[in-house]
Amino acid sequence: MKILDGKIIRDEILARLKTEFAKFPTPSRLAVIQIGECDDSTAYIRQKKIFADKIGATIEHIKFPENCSSEEIIEKIGVLNADNGVHGIIVQLSLPKDFNTDEIIEAINPNKDIDGLTAKNLRRFLVGDLDGLIPATARGILRLLDYYQIPIAGQRATIIGRSLLVGKPAALALLARGATVTICHRQTKNLAAIAKEADILITAAGQNNLVGKEFVSSGQTVIDVGNDVDSVAVKDMVGALTPTPGGVGPMTVACLFENLLKARIIKSLK
Amino acid sequence: MKILDGKIIRDEILARLKTEFAKFPTPSRLAVIQIGECDDSTAYIRQKKIFADKIGATIEHIKFPENCSSEEIIEKIGVLNADNGVHGIIVQLSLPKDFNTDEIIEAINPNKDIDGLTAKNLRRFLVGDLDGLIPATARGILRLLDYYQIPIAGQRATIIGRSLLVGKPAALALLARGATVTICHRQTKNLAAIAKEADILITAAGQNNLVGKEFVSSGQTVIDVGNDVDSVAVKDMVGALTPTPGGVGPMTVACLFENLLKARIIKSLK
Repeated sequence: MKILDGKIIRDEILARLKTEFAKFPTPSRLAVIQIGECDDSTAYIRQKKIFADKIGATIEHIKFPENCSSEEIIEKIGVLNADNGVHGIIVQLSLPKDFNTDEIIEAINPNKDIDGLTAKNLRRFLVGDLDGLIPATARGILRLLDYYQIPIAGQRATIIGRSLLVGKPAALALLARGATVTICHRQTKNLAAIAKEADILITAAGQNNLVGKEFVSSGQTVIDVGNDVDSVAVKDMVGALTPTPGGVGPMTVACLFENLLKARIIKSLK
Repeated sequence: MKILDGKIIRDEILARLKTEFAKFPTPSRLAVIQIGECDDSTAYIRQKKIFADKIGATIEHIKFPENCSSEEIIEKIGVLNADNGVHGIIVQLSLPKDFNTDEIIEAINPNKDIDGLTAKNLRRFLVGDLDGLIPATARGILRLLDYYQIPIAGQRATIIGRSLLVGKPAALALLARGATVTICHRQTKNLAAIAKEADILITAAGQNNLVGKEFVSSGQTVIDVGNDVDSVAVKDMVGALTPTPGGVGPMTVACLFENLLKARIIKSLK
């Protein structure tokens, strides 16, 4: 079995981005808005800061208390949209439940929306155009497959999970690259049998050890986004597997900063 | 085999819409922009006019010559957006190839976008919300399945075709209703075998007689959007089939006018 190491590719992207970002006369700045104190969010932001430091980009970490209003956040996004020194804006998801996530995300200028979640960027992605700002996890999955020369076009790709952040973007990305795509979720019957038919299985369920022997087949490529795979059980069966940690996670961070570069170039062209 | 007659449901929707539209003090108006003289477009617009006449709505058919500019069309859309007496705006697709379809569609006020193709409406649909303005063919497919009490949640639905107008919206609609969805297209290998596995097979390929015996299985529901099915070959095998004409086509027209009603209600609420 081949281990699909995301850290190697992450380091290559890191080196390239460091060179590219150094060409600009001013620092590249990413604003990260965090609402509340969710531990997962804090950990994800820390990963982004570590990466930003290494490539010479700046993260402005903006914290709002959980009892703030959507209007305050949207007002802050407006200030960041207008600031020419800010090249990317993300709102760390998921938000505490009283907030209207869609309305807050939509306030971001699509040219600075490096999470690729505004309507304008999602529409372009839905049309099948992969050259815009698409969600970093989807981009990371494509980069991983391409690096390890795993074919996509004409292959059966099955995704477990239909979230707006991971499952649906992964499906759109693989579809745009010519895979025959199946989307599974908690209502899917015979999940294991369907997963087994895939050439490329992407799991984004967030259920430890959901994916065991009965989900996989010989030669299959398994991309474990949600830490769902019982790697001990499947390692002697599948053809290739991402480790966790060290698989999709590092790719997602690196691809987010690829989007920051893209956003800065969009800006430069104006 | 059960025939999934779209005309019966179309007539029920027609009667309901006639009653609903009669409640407004002014006529409900739909502006249809046609660029060039494509025969298919002219025929589709004629269908819409016939339906509009029956429910007491008005269609304003606006023709542009093929040698007009995108700016002229976008300017006209701006006038229609600003006109409170216009409740829906559609641009009859597909456009002659020199036009930037996405840019023209995006000029439509999302509250009048009854084809459901602007970024704002597509994003809402992508999130999984079926209550907004979604493309009429996708809505028509759901209405057909519901009318004939064909279950969707937990079923395997396979779509042949990945267009922005039909294939992808059908996939999103069935996914939002809990189906396990597979999207096939011209790069799909073993298309017949994959189609055969479906509980609900939706064909939107636009290839006469593509779907023969080897694509279908016993008890399967087949929705023929693209006139792709060799109905003589499959009729004794499948459980249910839409006729062409008389299946999805009439549903699409009826659901477009359901969207016009929805758009007018959105407006009334403001």
